[in-house]
Amino acid sequence: MKAWEANIRRVTPYVPGEQPKSKDVIKLNTNENPYPPSPRVKEALLNVDELRKYPDPNVYDLRKALADYHKIDINRMFVGVGSDDVLANIFITFFNGDKPVLFPDITYSFYDVWASLYNIPFEQPKLDDNFRIVKEDYYKPNGGIVIANPNAPTAIAEPMSFIEDIVKNNQESVVVVDEAYVDFGGESALPLIDKYDNLLVVRTFSKSRSLAGMRIGYVMGHEDLIAALNDVKQSINSYTMTRASIDVGVASVLDDDYFREYVAKIVSTREAFSKEMRELGFTFADSSANFIFAKHNKAKAADIYNAAKDKGIFVRYFNKPRIDNYLRITIGTDEEMDKFLAFLKEFLTTSGC
Amino acid sequence: MKAWEANIRRVTPYVPGEQPKSKDVIKLNTNENPYPPSPRVKEALLNVDELRKYPDPNVYDLRKALADYHKIDINRMFVGVGSDDVLANIFITFFNGDKPVLFPDITYSFYDVWASLYNIPFEQPKLDDNFRIVKEDYYKPNGGIVIANPNAPTAIAEPMSFIEDIVKNNQESVVVVDEAYVDFGGESALPLIDKYDNLLVVRTFSKSRSLAGMRIGYVMGHEDLIAALNDVKQSINSYTMTRASIDVGVASVLDDDYFREYVAKIVSTREAFSKEMRELGFTFADSSANFIFAKHNKAKAADIYNAAKDKGIFVRYFNKPRIDNYLRITIGTDEEMDKFLAFLKEFLTTSGC
Repeated sequence: MKAWEANIRRVTPYVPGEQPKSKDVIKLNTNENPYPPSPRVKEALLNVDELRKYPDPNVYDLRKALADYHKIDINRMFVGVGSDDVLANIFITFFNGDKPVLFPDITYSFYDVWASLYNIPFEQPKLDDNFRIVKEDYYKPNGGIVIANPNAPTAIAEPMSFIEDIVKNNQESVVVVDEAYVDFGGESALPLIDKYDNLLVVRTFSKSRSLAGMRIGYVMGHEDLIAALNDVKQSINSYTMTRASIDVGVASVLDDDYFREYVAKIVSTREAFSKEMRELGFTFADSSANFIFAKHNKAKAADIYNAAKDKGIFVRYFNKPRIDNYLRITIGTDEEMDKFLAFLKEFLTTSGC
Repeated sequence: MKAWEANIRRVTPYVPGEQPKSKDVIKLNTNENPYPPSPRVKEALLNVDELRKYPDPNVYDLRKALADYHKIDINRMFVGVGSDDVLANIFITFFNGDKPVLFPDITYSFYDVWASLYNIPFEQPKLDDNFRIVKEDYYKPNGGIVIANPNAPTAIAEPMSFIEDIVKNNQESVVVVDEAYVDFGGESALPLIDKYDNLLVVRTFSKSRSLAGMRIGYVMGHEDLIAALNDVKQSINSYTMTRASIDVGVASVLDDDYFREYVAKIVSTREAFSKEMRELGFTFADSSANFIFAKHNKAKAADIYNAAKDKGIFVRYFNKPRIDNYLRITIGTDEEMDKFLAFLKEFLTTSGC
């Protein structure tokens, strides 16, 4: 081993869903939106001569548009390169104590990667047998709490009162609610930021706003929390949001009719698809997200996953304890879901399930 | 103080150059390129429907275009959100030892911010009285070395042999050469990556490629270094490069004629401007960058800075020991430099300098 190799930080990185190069596939594996972003986005991208200049390090225009949209003060709004960037910054900013940070054993699988990377101790209370969060598990000394709501990959949402109980019982910690999927049916904890100064509510443009490719996420909370977060962010990279992302983000926020129309479309596809899936022998909790998390009463998840992939249909399979017989299936267009259902019917028949 | 405030990471953030909102100013303060990016960039931005999808987490297309451009293997190429993102990732990945990381006392002022943020010990050997790096100061036990070449804000470049001496005498450390400004006249250390497996060479699209607004930087080095860097990066955020930045980056690399033409234009403006500045009583080293770092033989830098700002001309002034009588002036268009020179002539006359 070289001498300098001893000083390298060794990590086990997060493994994102497959991004097949071919265009001839049906991608139901990364919770992307099947519809394009608002047509206003195209106009917003044409300010090419300005690209020679650095973006606004304070991302004022997009923070303002979002603050107005959510009717909060701009000093309670922080914007980052996707909610992953926002959450990574939250971990490094707020979780510097000795007590463990708490998040469920089954949840977004980046939380433990950040904790490991930044040497943050953590514990993962178990979801119950129905994959519900047990709130009382979070009523103990801790260095911070992260709850995805709706949770991923379970697609289960808890009401605001549930989140409030956790926040109320943890006034000494920063509590983070990751609402990446809230637009598809969850109840937001946002109103609680007026009442609790230790609460952060995280959102993303990657799902409901069809802008995964532009990397836009944000977080809302007490202005002291937002200021501390901003200081750390400015110490890593002043200019993280591209000019294009800022412009496109503003355009998306201003086109609320488009946003509501396409979210409603996905919810309607999800409900129809859920009904058909149950008829095929799948069981799963009602989804409040743009995906369902389902297991079949006979066929094995890994077998379905592999057979679907052979047909050019990608769904997400996690080879992990407790969830290794489940599939996470993103809601695409009606046509895409019909093709997936047709595949399933054939697969289940030929495999005798 | 709230209990959770004890766990907040407190930092003194980097302060970027002013970004005035008004369009009626001459911005010679952030080393941006005065010319727009290649016209091919506009076409690259029009793939709007694809923005609903996550970008390629491995940034293959842009890494491939850059690897081909520099004639190196793609496994020796890492791309990030500007060179700031690349450098921040280098600090957290490679500088985990107990010995101090070394970089000059006068250099890019983000290096000490990253070291502080990540709790990395560091020492800053002094530049000599002519603002030259003293290479022997780096021949001692250390946890890593960072050299900006050309250095900022001095604009002074050292030859490849100088960098090689530092690398040769530090086989036990990772040595980083930050070549943000190399296209304007420096000699790159890139050929040395074939010879030394502990060397990283960092570049950016923000200056010579007129794409500061799209946040693209990269680093080249031994594939083991690049792999370790990539593992850490993937542990923070898999998707940092937007689809727009990847597409635009490829378009820029492919238009080499445009690139060369506009770099040559800036170099020619710099040479003419330098001559005039010396005639006005400024002294400064020959610049190998897209800025000069100058002091006047009578007038105070702070006074010039403030008077220029009143006229809507922004240059960079650092109120720091040893350089508080210097101005860093970005090379703009010929017309912009003429306006600045006209301002200076009037200022120096009326202030009796």
